[in-house]
Amino acid sequence: MSSGRLETFADGVFAIAATLLILSVDGRVGGEGAQLGRELTHAWPSYVAYAVSFVTIGIMWVNHHTLMAQVGRVDRRFLLATVVFLMCIAFIPFPTRLAAEHISGEGAREGALAYGFTLTVTAVMFSVIWFYASIGGRLLRHDADPRVVKGISRSYLPGPLIYLTSTLIAFASPAASLILYLAIAGLYVLESSLFGGRGSADL
Amino acid sequence: MSSGRLETFADGVFAIAATLLILSVDGRVGGEGAQLGRELTHAWPSYVAYAVSFVTIGIMWVNHHTLMAQVGRVDRRFLLATVVFLMCIAFIPFPTRLAAEHISGEGAREGALAYGFTLTVTAVMFSVIWFYASIGGRLLRHDADPRVVKGISRSYLPGPLIYLTSTLIAFASPAASLILYLAIAGLYVLESSLFGGRGSADL
Amino acid sequence: MSSGRLETFADGVFAIAATLLILSVDGRVGGEGAQLGRELTHAWPSYVAYAVSFVTIGIMWVNHHTLMAQVGRVDRRFLLATVVFLMCIAFIPFPTRLAAEHISGEGAREGALAYGFTLTVTAVMFSVIWFYASIGGRLLRHDADPRVVKGISRSYLPGPLIYLTSTLIAFASPAASLILYLAIAGLYVLESSLFGGRGSADL
Amino acid sequence: MSSGRLETFADGVFAIAATLLILSVDGRVGGEGAQLGRELTHAWPSYVAYAVSFVTIGIMWVNHHTLMAQVGRVDRRFLLATVVFLMCIAFIPFPTRLAAEHISGEGAREGALAYGFTLTVTAVMFSVIWFYASIGGRLLRHDADPRVVKGISRSYLPGPLIYLTSTLIAFASPAASLILYLAIAGLYVLESSLFGGRGSADL
Repeated sequence: MSSGRLETFADGVFAIAATLLILSVDGRVGGEGAQLGRELTHAWPSYVAYAVSFVTIGIMWVNHHTLMAQVGRVDRRFLLATVVFLMCIAFIPFPTRLAAEHISGEGAREGALAYGFTLTVTAVMFSVIWFYASIGGRLLRHDADPRVVKGISRSYLPGPLIYLTSTLIAFASPAASLILYLAIAGLYVLESSLFGGRGSADL
Repeated sequence: MSSGRLETFADGVFAIAATLLILSVDGRVGGEGAQLGRELTHAWPSYVAYAVSFVTIGIMWVNHHTLMAQVGRVDRRFLLATVVFLMCIAFIPFPTRLAAEHISGEGAREGALAYGFTLTVTAVMFSVIWFYASIGGRLLRHDADPRVVKGISRSYLPGPLIYLTSTLIAFASPAASLILYLAIAGLYVLESSLFGGRGSADL
Repeated sequence: MSSGRLETFADGVFAIAATLLILSVDGRVGGEGAQLGRELTHAWPSYVAYAVSFVTIGIMWVNHHTLMAQVGRVDRRFLLATVVFLMCIAFIPFPTRLAAEHISGEGAREGALAYGFTLTVTAVMFSVIWFYASIGGRLLRHDADPRVVKGISRSYLPGPLIYLTSTLIAFASPAASLILYLAIAGLYVLESSLFGGRGSADL
Repeated sequence: MSSGRLETFADGVFAIAATLLILSVDGRVGGEGAQLGRELTHAWPSYVAYAVSFVTIGIMWVNHHTLMAQVGRVDRRFLLATVVFLMCIAFIPFPTRLAAEHISGEGAREGALAYGFTLTVTAVMFSVIWFYASIGGRLLRHDADPRVVKGISRSYLPGPLIYLTSTLIAFASPAASLILYLAIAGLYVLESSLFGGRGSADL
């Protein structure tokens, strides 16, 4: 399995899942001309959900690259775990629509739970991929820098916990849960904007 | 035809077919807020079907790579057979929805037959590609290892038969047929989890 | 513009347009369980249309590769003409659905005309790309073989005329027109099956 | 982050967003056979919108390549800005449908505004990417030609302003605004047809 082939498939799923998000926004606004303005305004949760999920998928794509840059070999377990991880990524458009459409009123809790549960499982699968490849250096490149590997392990470790916490909060308050998903994506954007210019990698 | 170009197109079809599977899940859950929880629970056959088809497409993607790694030349017959194979892959989302929506009640048999027939034809086309390329070493790389080639032939041979058997069982029991499709994907996952860590290939 | 980048975009459009064809098939079969068998049988024009359009897009993908293998330089005119050509490819799923849904009864003529017109314009744009690149050797590779170039010109020249003729026949008989589109794809498959094994290219 | 990986993801989003445009055209024409001809004629705004948006996305793809050809390094800020830029590209099919469906009658202003606003933000993000990479040569290749860099800066600078002006004109006349979007894409095609053959780049 050449690295290029694995990444073409993965990037394809990332790109399609992200681009399919627009179909849910599109489905929210149909109606008659006279109401178009009002419908466009009322559809704001769909725009926010579109942006949060697109950026979240974008972040996972960036992280997946960072991971693959340290990986030098693959086996069938690794390929299969990647397929399951991509299955989670491709699932994201569905709970994104649920969370956006049911943001207020009945169904808000179920929507927020579905969204959070999907992101939690996705983050777990991402960690599975990384720790399977990195523990004992099993699939790492021979010249992988131990400090970089440790840094990645440290930064990926809290992901599932953060998403699980946000999900569980939906039982108490769906709104708080959704705001947390937005905050996670927003904080990453903010942190990258502030500190993301420090280390640049050659193409 | 460079290998890269053939694989870009193939990986594109694999990735899109797999990602489009979510649209059928999405179409199952619409409804009003108050019923969202119940709808999400009742849609469980769509989640199972999504997972089985995604993993099945993922397995075929892994196998297609294994095949292409031994292929060193292509001719127009091979290209055309690949197009027909990909036509089967891209067809999978349709019977996946049928099988999931009609899992119980009337239509279960037709749904299971449509799903099984599609997977059988897909497996047949996969074998056609492989045996066209490998018999007499027609399109194999000059340095292809005969033992690897024989191993692939042996492991791909039963595929169409297994799927055909599962399909024919749908005449007797659609449920048994669907459980077999799930078991085939599940066994592959299990087998890869247990033994898939033995040979790792350099990227 | 690296060749790889142009081909990634082109292959992406080819793969997505071909894979989206399944959505029209999927939209034909909804219904209740009891009628699933009958609906699946009645949808046969959608299966034929799916196969014809998928193979047609596949043939154009193969031909586009053959063309690009002779091209060594690109300019903005060439890129733009490629974008317009891909715009035609991405349009194909729409008239495919029209032709399949209206194959009998009123609307058959309009469906066949829409399908034929789209394929004709696609074939014209393909010729525009090739002759722009090849006349006077404008964008060809320095080591392009004049005989290969002439062979391509000869084989691409009749494409638009064949599709135009099939389209015009729809005014007299939509059925005859649709059979011709099927025959064109079928003949290509037959010809490739019979003679497509002669020249094999190294990957 | 290898250049290839960034461009695979970007090209994927470009290709999918462009290809998804056909779904809106497809959704416009359903109906009964007897009315197919009339429906196909009445859907002309959808064809125009399809062509304008496809060519606009194609132009942005060409420009994105031109930009990336000068970029030699990436950092996380650049990756994130690219994700946000692609989020705008993937958004285009939605306002394209709105503008086409509401081209006359009530809702025309809202449709034209949604379309123009999306293109304006997209053009702004494109400039953000370029000026972040090019100011002070931050992420440029070491051998980037200063005259080429200046030429790109000059040609990209007016983009957001042109789209913003077209958008604001929608408050006075939605029709004039839509004609301007068409004219911008048309002028680019015309200019490329007339002068796009001068500098050709090796593949």
